[in-house]
Amino acid sequence: MTKEELANRAVFPMGKENAAFAQYFQGQSYLNMLTTEGVAIGNVTFEPGCRNNWHIHQAKNGGGQILLCTIGRGYYQEWGKEARELHPGDVVVIPAGVKHWHGAAPNSWFAHLAVEVPGEETKNEWCEPVSDTEYEKLK
Amino acid sequence: MTKEELANRAVFPMGKENAAFAQYFQGQSYLNMLTTEGVAIGNVTFEPGCRNNWHIHQAKNGGGQILLCTIGRGYYQEWGKEARELHPGDVVVIPAGVKHWHGAAPNSWFAHLAVEVPGEETKNEWCEPVSDTEYEKLK
Repeated sequence: MTKEELANRAVFPMGKENAAFAQYFQGQSYLNMLTTEGVAIGNVTFEPGCRNNWHIHQAKNGGGQILLCTIGRGYYQEWGKEARELHPGDVVVIPAGVKHWHGAAPNSWFAHLAVEVPGEETKNEWCEPVSDTEYEKLK
Repeated sequence: MTKEELANRAVFPMGKENAAFAQYFQGQSYLNMLTTEGVAIGNVTFEPGCRNNWHIHQAKNGGGQILLCTIGRGYYQEWGKEARELHPGDVVVIPAGVKHWHGAAPNSWFAHLAVEVPGEETKNEWCEPVSDTEYEKLK
């Protein structure tokens, strides 16, 4: 999916360059917070090849994140498992404590809604980038 | 928006007829629960003219619901206020304790994601239907 196709078809605006989290991403992502009341929900858009670092949603209770894939093609991978290819309509439930990454396919824009599951003492632990060697195995 | 247009363009499948809540709706709705882990998120689709009864998301703490409008045209109305017309990309944050209804426009299919905001002692209080007189004021 090209940027023009994404711009024409996306339901939720892509928002601005995701400067706050850029240090934890390879490539350019965009973040549009849809709401921070009750449950924080952001629309995250990734340019082709863009992915976030391995990370863990830590929480004492509850926590984690839910991805609702809306457009384009991407990947989700948990540590020690095969990457899962993502398409519009796919839902990923990421439990707290699980090391993982998500992002675009090498040749496609991708966007998902990210729903923060409320919990106690929640925080993100950011780890190492997904290496080019690992990422380049993906189509 | 016609049913065919909705079927061709919708990102999230519409699921089955919403039998469990049919008693609280005028017209036919469809419900596809995307996840019930962490935060319950359902895709709700309304045929033209379909709307739910006035209702209140009761909670001792937290609670309420967030609507993420994905396709078609619909309405949201809080008791004593003007109805708000809804389009794809619109977000509605419904606080606990506020009497309201939502549904399709008279001549358009409509769908939104409904995100249940977690809370303490949450339950839905269902009230009277939106009267034809009130609803027929809407375009």
